[in-house]
Amino acid sequence: MELIRIPRIMQDTSRGHLLHGRGIGFVPTMGALHEGHLSLVRRAKEENDITMVSIFVNPLQFGPSEDFNKYPKDTDGDADKLRKAEIDVLFMPDASSLYPAGFSTHVEIEKLSEKLCGAFRPGHFRGVATIVTKLFNIVAPTRAYFGQKDYQQAVIIKKMVKDLDMGIDIVVCPTIREHDGLAMSSRNAYLNEEERKAATVINKCLVQTTELIKSGIIDIGSIRRFMKEKLSEKPLVTEIQYASVYDPETLDELERVEKEALLAVALKIGGTRLIDNMLVKV
Amino acid sequence: MELIRIPRIMQDTSRGHLLHGRGIGFVPTMGALHEGHLSLVRRAKEENDITMVSIFVNPLQFGPSEDFNKYPKDTDGDADKLRKAEIDVLFMPDASSLYPAGFSTHVEIEKLSEKLCGAFRPGHFRGVATIVTKLFNIVAPTRAYFGQKDYQQAVIIKKMVKDLDMGIDIVVCPTIREHDGLAMSSRNAYLNEEERKAATVINKCLVQTTELIKSGIIDIGSIRRFMKEKLSEKPLVTEIQYASVYDPETLDELERVEKEALLAVALKIGGTRLIDNMLVKV
Repeated sequence: MELIRIPRIMQDTSRGHLLHGRGIGFVPTMGALHEGHLSLVRRAKEENDITMVSIFVNPLQFGPSEDFNKYPKDTDGDADKLRKAEIDVLFMPDASSLYPAGFSTHVEIEKLSEKLCGAFRPGHFRGVATIVTKLFNIVAPTRAYFGQKDYQQAVIIKKMVKDLDMGIDIVVCPTIREHDGLAMSSRNAYLNEEERKAATVINKCLVQTTELIKSGIIDIGSIRRFMKEKLSEKPLVTEIQYASVYDPETLDELERVEKEALLAVALKIGGTRLIDNMLVKV
Repeated sequence: MELIRIPRIMQDTSRGHLLHGRGIGFVPTMGALHEGHLSLVRRAKEENDITMVSIFVNPLQFGPSEDFNKYPKDTDGDADKLRKAEIDVLFMPDASSLYPAGFSTHVEIEKLSEKLCGAFRPGHFRGVATIVTKLFNIVAPTRAYFGQKDYQQAVIIKKMVKDLDMGIDIVVCPTIREHDGLAMSSRNAYLNEEERKAATVINKCLVQTTELIKSGIIDIGSIRRFMKEKLSEKPLVTEIQYASVYDPETLDELERVEKEALLAVALKIGGTRLIDNMLVKV
């Protein structure tokens, strides 16, 4: 595994591979790698000649009151995991090399960026779209891999790639879960023992709401009420930001579930913000 | 000369050339080609294995009250000129293939986009940055060529390429002028005989202001006054949007000209908006 820190060297390395006709599979991450990330890495390795992973905690996608400064870091552990996964290149740039003084260009995807998480994290998806554009330009991947857990992010990246003709295949891989159903997330590390137990309510809510819908309860009022009641069973759930059923493409809330739908939840347990989602077909 | 209309085919063609190690020189245009465009094409041919030109009148960079619908078109004439110039590929996409229904992604360069022309054409440089990003992603050039006449555009594109790590060399080529000094522009075709004569005042103003500065008059007040008086000599000049001296990198207006400076003018002659500029070194 080659470790590269300088964007220009990363770009030259990638272009060298492309010149030899090698397809590049790319997994962009913010580090603190878990089994979810590693599932993307394995998929990338299966489908490409060369596999590259980036680790960069992107300041641009964090709001001023968010957890940028305490975001989990485990650089040595991450490098070990990636070495064992036999990736070819680990790209770990410094913030100063990606955002030098005077940086002032942004990529914005309207509408999709304002919904769901976007309503609670203004500027978040602009920050995501901008760093992903930069990383795509530097790494020049053939295919890039994202987890379904960050469903809205995946939809936005796909839209951006299409709108800006980036010519990169965006592959969305299934959410990987702990044994009790909690979606894997680097932010789970913030939870204490009690909070960790309470967090299982999210997956339980999604599973039970799926059953409810499949049993024929398909109107938004009943679904919202059920999800809210279920999540509110845990006193440690201090804030429900959204919990409802959405169009999987436009992310608009549905009036009735009539074909495929996205069940999605964002809430806070103590000070930790968690999200999860599930696709349901009627 | 190969004519390509479909973005996906253009992208595959470019990638084929890159795979063979060929450098691509690219000249993006809005057609109605004049000697200014052709000077860019010749430079691109000198410096690259493959030369590609695009013709696309980009609706996104025109304001609602601007001249999108009457922008000069001469597709057959343009194709002849490019064939004679022996370019390899002419890319002429349809608006519907670049901006399908639901298009919603934009690239924005803050600060630089709000100055000079940006103050009079809100959204213009966002439209320029977005189409140039798309064309760069489709054509995948090694080098791209822009005219100094659109100085602010060139500065913004360079900044975008740097900020988003596009890894493309941006080459800015000198303004080409008519025999009487008027900067070549597709919009000169809008001018009637009287207006065409009056338009020579722009270059005269830039030349005389350069002399003024070189003679030691370097304060903004005197320079602005001189430029305004000079341009106002022509009654057909119906509006002076800006005429002053700016920092060539930040585009901020200068208090005093102490090293390199940009003299820049935007005005209307009748209903036609014209711009020009000149770099001056003290």
